[in-house]
Formats: sequence, C-alpha cells, structure tokens
Amino acid sequence: MKNVAVILSGCGVYDGAEIHESVLTLLALSQAGATVTCAAPDIAQAHVIDHRAGEPEANATRNVLTESARIARGEIQSVTELNVEDYDAILFPGGFGAAKNLSSLAFDGPEFTVEPTVAALVEAAHQSGKVLGFMCIAPAIAACVLGGKGVRVTIGNDPGTAAALESKGAKHIECPVNEIVVDEGLKVVTTPAYMLAQSIAEAESGIRKLVHKVLEIA
Amino acid sequence: MKNVAVILSGCGVYDGAEIHESVLTLLALSQAGATVTCAAPDIAQAHVIDHRAGEPEANATRNVLTESARIARGEIQSVTELNVEDYDAILFPGGFGAAKNLSSLAFDGPEFTVEPTVAALVEAAHQSGKVLGFMCIAPAIAACVLGGKGVRVTIGNDPGTAAALESKGAKHIECPVNEIVVDEGLKVVTTPAYMLAQSIAEAESGIRKLVHKVLEIA
Repeated sequence: MKNVAVILSGCGVYDGAEIHESVLTLLALSQAGATVTCAAPDIAQAHVIDHRAGEPEANATRNVLTESARIARGEIQSVTELNVEDYDAILFPGGFGAAKNLSSLAFDGPEFTVEPTVAALVEAAHQSGKVLGFMCIAPAIAACVLGGKGVRVTIGNDPGTAAALESKGAKHIECPVNEIVVDEGLKVVTTPAYMLAQSIAEAESGIRKLVHKVLEIA
Repeated sequence: MKNVAVILSGCGVYDGAEIHESVLTLLALSQAGATVTCAAPDIAQAHVIDHRAGEPEANATRNVLTESARIARGEIQSVTELNVEDYDAILFPGGFGAAKNLSSLAFDGPEFTVEPTVAALVEAAHQSGKVLGFMCIAPAIAACVLGGKGVRVTIGNDPGTAAALESKGAKHIECPVNEIVVDEGLKVVTTPAYMLAQSIAEAESGIRKLVHKVLEIA
C-alpha cells in the first residue's frame, strides 16, 4: 500500500486547484489502492476570482488551506505538517492556484519563485528519493526547484510557458494530453492535463497514466 | 449524442455540491459522449462552512451559482435559463447543498420544501418525459416534487432520512453504494454515493452506473 500526499492550491481553476484534475487524481489513487493525504499551504490566496464572471472579486480574501479543504472533504493538513518520510510520492494537480498561490508564475513570468513551504517540501522529497508528479501548469514548481538539475517536464506545448520553465534550467518536452513525460533519474512525472484537454475525459487519460507511473516508480 | 443538464448547489460538501460526486458525474458523462450543461440556482447559499474547521463562517455570504461555476470551470447557466426541451436528462449530484440550498431538508426535516426554481425545473422535466437522476441526499428533491406519484428512490439506508422522504409519499428502497434504484415508470434513477461511500472509488461505482442507466433510458 503506497502513501501519497496530494498538494492542493485552493478550490477552483482560476484562483486555486483545478477541481477536475484534483478529483481525478484522488480517484486514480483510490482505485489503485493508495492511501492519500491532502495538504495545502496555510496562506492567503493571491486573489479571489468570481468563476461565473471571470473577474476578480474586489476586497475578497480566502485562505488556500481552508478552500482546499472543500476538495478534501475536510480531511486536510498544512504543508508544514507533512513529514516527507511518511510518503512514497507527492502529487501536484494544476489550476491557476499552482501559478498564483504555490508559485508566482502567473504574475512574474520567467522571474517566478515558489512559495517557500512548498519549495522546501519538494526539495526534501527529492532529497529523500521520493517520486514527484505534477499536472497542467504545476510542472513550473518542479522547474523552479529542480531546474538546476535539468529536470525534464511537460506543460503540453505552449511556447511562452515552456520558455519560462526552461529559463530555470528545466528541459521542456512537448507532450499530448493523453501522455506523460518521465524524468527517470530525478523521479519526476508530468502530464499536460487542462493545459491541453478539451474535455474532462481527455484530462483523465493523462492523469490516470501519471498516477500509475508514479505508483510504479515509488 | 445525449444532452444532459447537471444541476449544482455550490462548491463543497458541507455547504454546496459534493465536489467528488459532481466531477465523477461530469467524467462519466464525458466518457459516454454526452453533451453537458452545468446549471445552478442564482440564490444566496444558506450559509458558508469553513471546510477545514467544520464550522460556519460568521458573516460570510456566497452565491450558489457563482460558487458552482468553480466546478463547471466557468461554463454555467442559471437554472431559470434552462429549457427542459433542450435536454434528454437532468442530474443532481449530492452534498449538503442539495439539502440546504436546493431544498430545506437539513433545516426543516420532514417539513422540508424544494427551492422554487429547482422544483419548477424537476416538474417540467417530468411532465416532458425526461429522465431524472439524483445522488446522495439529492433524492430528497425527487421525493418532495414527485412524492405524490409515489416515486421510488434511495438515499442508502439512513432510517431518519428515509422517513423524511417517505413522509412526502416517496417509497424508499435500501441500496448499497455500488448500486442504483430505478423507478422505470417515472424515469427516476438514484444512488447513495457519499451517503454510504467510504472512498471516492466506492462513490464512483454507483455514480457511473447511474449515469449509464440514465443515458440508456433517455
């Protein structure tokens, strides 16, 4: 039985974790018999987007951990409470939360940084030989933390985003929605998900493949 | 190609639509090739629950349609914009939103009522011979609107909830998590989902069966 931590970044594609990707990750893990712990950083969201209007809500504030708890049905921990030794793998679904709350990619472009507690978690997991999986735009986190080691990742085929990741030292590989990119040496698996998916069924195909590969390596 | 409307009740198990059930519904529909429209009533939530603490957030207000848009990735309509003639079936995932926003079951028990625009939609769909599907606690909506016709539904095996539904004239059938109850005459399909599920994989088994049966009848 594998123990896997799933790191969420809020609840909603435009200001948090992409909900479909998060749930599809939990589904594939559950169906594979893995034990799952959801976690998120205990920080304020960068902003709150009204998902009906597609516009920021003025003066609204929400907490990343509190909103992530909606996807986790209340069972969630702060990222700083996780001990990487307890887990075989750590997975990051995408959504703008990965580029706004877990990193600053959406605001800073190639000069982006990763939220410190998330960067520390990824670094510790890598040092302990754990498997890391990143979906959609979340491979930016791997590019920033493991770019110095030339980590191989995919975010699909968007040239501007790929260039931002490569500016950190990462190697970007183009990849279709139903496939994964595997960096065997660094134990990092990535898939484009909704960077390319035209339907939830398309997103599911790559996410299921990623989860199975992560559990196989772990 | 079947056209299906999925009616959401917010975004989060304790004050809105159950996120896993909603996404699993969208997944099964997408994989079956159905065209999906998400909708929700444009009303205030009954309240906002902090899903990390499990407690109401004082003075917080959220809109059911706006929050439901998070699950729908921004593509959503008001329930009053739907023309039932455009759809082959209408599905209701569960979550406390079905018992707090779409109906008053969580507050009023056996004296509960259904939100008027939702009741009108269900009544119109039934009059037009459309198929209706309800998961988890959402069969309470069917019990209230179609109880006079003795609709057969399941919410799993909770005696108190079953009694509340039967007080409306509905017939409650006990049902395991991986099964469905079909009222062939009234074209109503129900499944317990997280009323009984101990894992997302368990919830998925019944929801997939419900979606396939609804599409088969439609």
